[in-house]
Amino acid sequence: MTLLVPNLELVKTITKPSPDKIVLLIIDGLGGLPHPQTGRTELETADMPNLDQLATEAICGVIDPVSPGITPGSAPGHLALFGYDPFSYNIGRGVLEAVGVDFPLESQDVAVRGNFCVIDEAGLVADRRAGRLSTEKCAELCQLLDGLVIENVKIFVSPVKEHRFMVVFRGEGLAPDVTDSDPQQIGAAPKSITALNPQAGKTASIATKFVAQAKATLAGHHPANMVLLRGFSQRPQFPTMGEIYKLKPAAIASYPMYRGLAKLVGMEILETGNSIEDELATLKQNYADYDFFFVHIKGADAAGEDGDFDRKVKIIEQVDRALPSLMDVKPDVLVVTGDHSTPALLKGHSWHPVPILLRSKWCRPDKVCQFSESACAGGGLGRFPAIHIMMLAMANALKLTKFGA
Amino acid sequence: MTLLVPNLELVKTITKPSPDKIVLLIIDGLGGLPHPQTGRTELETADMPNLDQLATEAICGVIDPVSPGITPGSAPGHLALFGYDPFSYNIGRGVLEAVGVDFPLESQDVAVRGNFCVIDEAGLVADRRAGRLSTEKCAELCQLLDGLVIENVKIFVSPVKEHRFMVVFRGEGLAPDVTDSDPQQIGAAPKSITALNPQAGKTASIATKFVAQAKATLAGHHPANMVLLRGFSQRPQFPTMGEIYKLKPAAIASYPMYRGLAKLVGMEILETGNSIEDELATLKQNYADYDFFFVHIKGADAAGEDGDFDRKVKIIEQVDRALPSLMDVKPDVLVVTGDHSTPALLKGHSWHPVPILLRSKWCRPDKVCQFSESACAGGGLGRFPAIHIMMLAMANALKLTKFGA
Repeated sequence: MTLLVPNLELVKTITKPSPDKIVLLIIDGLGGLPHPQTGRTELETADMPNLDQLATEAICGVIDPVSPGITPGSAPGHLALFGYDPFSYNIGRGVLEAVGVDFPLESQDVAVRGNFCVIDEAGLVADRRAGRLSTEKCAELCQLLDGLVIENVKIFVSPVKEHRFMVVFRGEGLAPDVTDSDPQQIGAAPKSITALNPQAGKTASIATKFVAQAKATLAGHHPANMVLLRGFSQRPQFPTMGEIYKLKPAAIASYPMYRGLAKLVGMEILETGNSIEDELATLKQNYADYDFFFVHIKGADAAGEDGDFDRKVKIIEQVDRALPSLMDVKPDVLVVTGDHSTPALLKGHSWHPVPILLRSKWCRPDKVCQFSESACAGGGLGRFPAIHIMMLAMANALKLTKFGA
Repeated sequence: MTLLVPNLELVKTITKPSPDKIVLLIIDGLGGLPHPQTGRTELETADMPNLDQLATEAICGVIDPVSPGITPGSAPGHLALFGYDPFSYNIGRGVLEAVGVDFPLESQDVAVRGNFCVIDEAGLVADRRAGRLSTEKCAELCQLLDGLVIENVKIFVSPVKEHRFMVVFRGEGLAPDVTDSDPQQIGAAPKSITALNPQAGKTASIATKFVAQAKATLAGHHPANMVLLRGFSQRPQFPTMGEIYKLKPAAIASYPMYRGLAKLVGMEILETGNSIEDELATLKQNYADYDFFFVHIKGADAAGEDGDFDRKVKIIEQVDRALPSLMDVKPDVLVVTGDHSTPALLKGHSWHPVPILLRSKWCRPDKVCQFSESACAGGGLGRFPAIHIMMLAMANALKLTKFGA
């Protein structure tokens, strides 16, 4: 079987610079499901004259974030948006947690995801999440462990959320190829951390000592008395968007996770504020200095995850009201879509296709004049995997040469 | 990631002969972009009652020639139409030039693309194209070099267009794995031609001697004083359409490049004239003797490349008027599409999807009754990669057995 996606090495051979600029506006969790009382999705409920006007001028469609039926996490969802096959380009769990808290990960660091947990007197895991302790408590416990140095390896521990934290080991001669201590079930003992190859021996030894020390430190700190580690990993060495697309790309995102993902593919991170208006102001201020902008808006996804249909509608309307400020910079190619659907009815990410619009001088507009799941499904772009978005945007920015003679 | 494509070895196992005949009518560069004054593309402007009638009786859709966003050259565009994955099946530049001038390439020949160029007194390339000298001048210079024999290797030199020509080396013990002499930039010296493996040593030596002799010969022949060679290649050994599809395929094309491409996939080439009417007359005369016909019409692409919207419209109308003669043969399966779009507005090949119609007794017609970009985008075939066309045509000709039990 062949998959008709050009690999990034081939893509490199057909990209070229052009004066045109691309803005990729990602409304996280954009797609939804119809409200049982109205039969309309969040997008179909929202009053959004600007997005509908854009849809009218654009070519529209729906994307499968990764592949039909697959519900992506944030990492594969965004890798696909940036043109990286999420089945081939993996980001380790530890690295994802580290970039998710804006930790300045260095290339030789080994990062791992931690859970505060409870073990019983027999040493078996009684609660993998220590009662989902509060994020405040997590931060307090992390402080007890942060800054340890074991055999010249410095250990950073930062809280993520509730029982979750990240650990980063920094020092000479570390490698990520070690097994997890997290048995991923209750009633089992934490596993010993072992090296999968000789290069990882030191990491296994240091991590084992760290776990022992954490156990000793946590003894008097209810509700947790132990840590579980999983997903030892190093920062992946992906080809950068600069190398692949010959772009100078910048990311504008108020949540650290998305800044981290953007950094992993070589984008520059622009400082911005928390609101949509802040993000678009940042775009305007920096528009002259880059030729690709990834703008990430988080609120719709959070509202969807909370099952709050009305709040998700309001956030979409808020994006719509802020759009004129984006249009002021007159992007040559504007793409608006999401990294996945987050229907309020499902209270979580889902597999449903996400509407997309692409507006450019060369887009060949279709008849769609509403930016919604149902209208875009009949658009000129049809239904396609998100991984093609970058090539379509590049084509519309006249940044691709002919493939083959 | 996108649609799964069965490889040709698998395809071979499910193809079977049937009495039905397939006609694949390729209108080169068919797709376009809306005229800024009318909002209608070339196809949407043309008066074409016959194509619209066919669309009404057919199932319609749009194809991505290679993959979304990618602008294909003629070779990958046509390989995809014939069912060959253009990312896997490559044709070297030299071979493409040779088949493009109808040169009868033998399997052991090594072909290479040449440029007449100018080098300065320091031996650096001053002009890679010798002022884009005329095709007549090119033919004149080629004659000076054609027919040389160096160490029993016969050398054929034929003009292509302007500064472009092809060289074919014919003799014992040649291999294509040698580096280019063309530095692909001005201000650099021509590179030495070196063998990439021991088998190619003789080729490198002969080609180097040929370049030296060309330099000596051209010394007195303004405006060129040197040649640059790139893309040493041998005729690829593709599985033939006969082997894969169990077809007896024939090609009708007035331009040599397309005859050459058809020959590379094992089609028989039927002699024809220059006009659309000539080509369709050839189809009628030979209809009894083959069960697959590739009919290639060049004019629309050439008009698009010239940026001549109106001429492209006229050529489409001319095809439409000639269609009844094609319909006379009552093809069991008729596919009409293009190898890529060539919008007059862009004056070149583009990435935009191309309308397609497929008419057969078993096609399950949709509601589309106009053969245009916008109407076909809403057709029953949806949007799909061109590589699937052959399997759809084969299925409609009842030439495929069930896959799996």
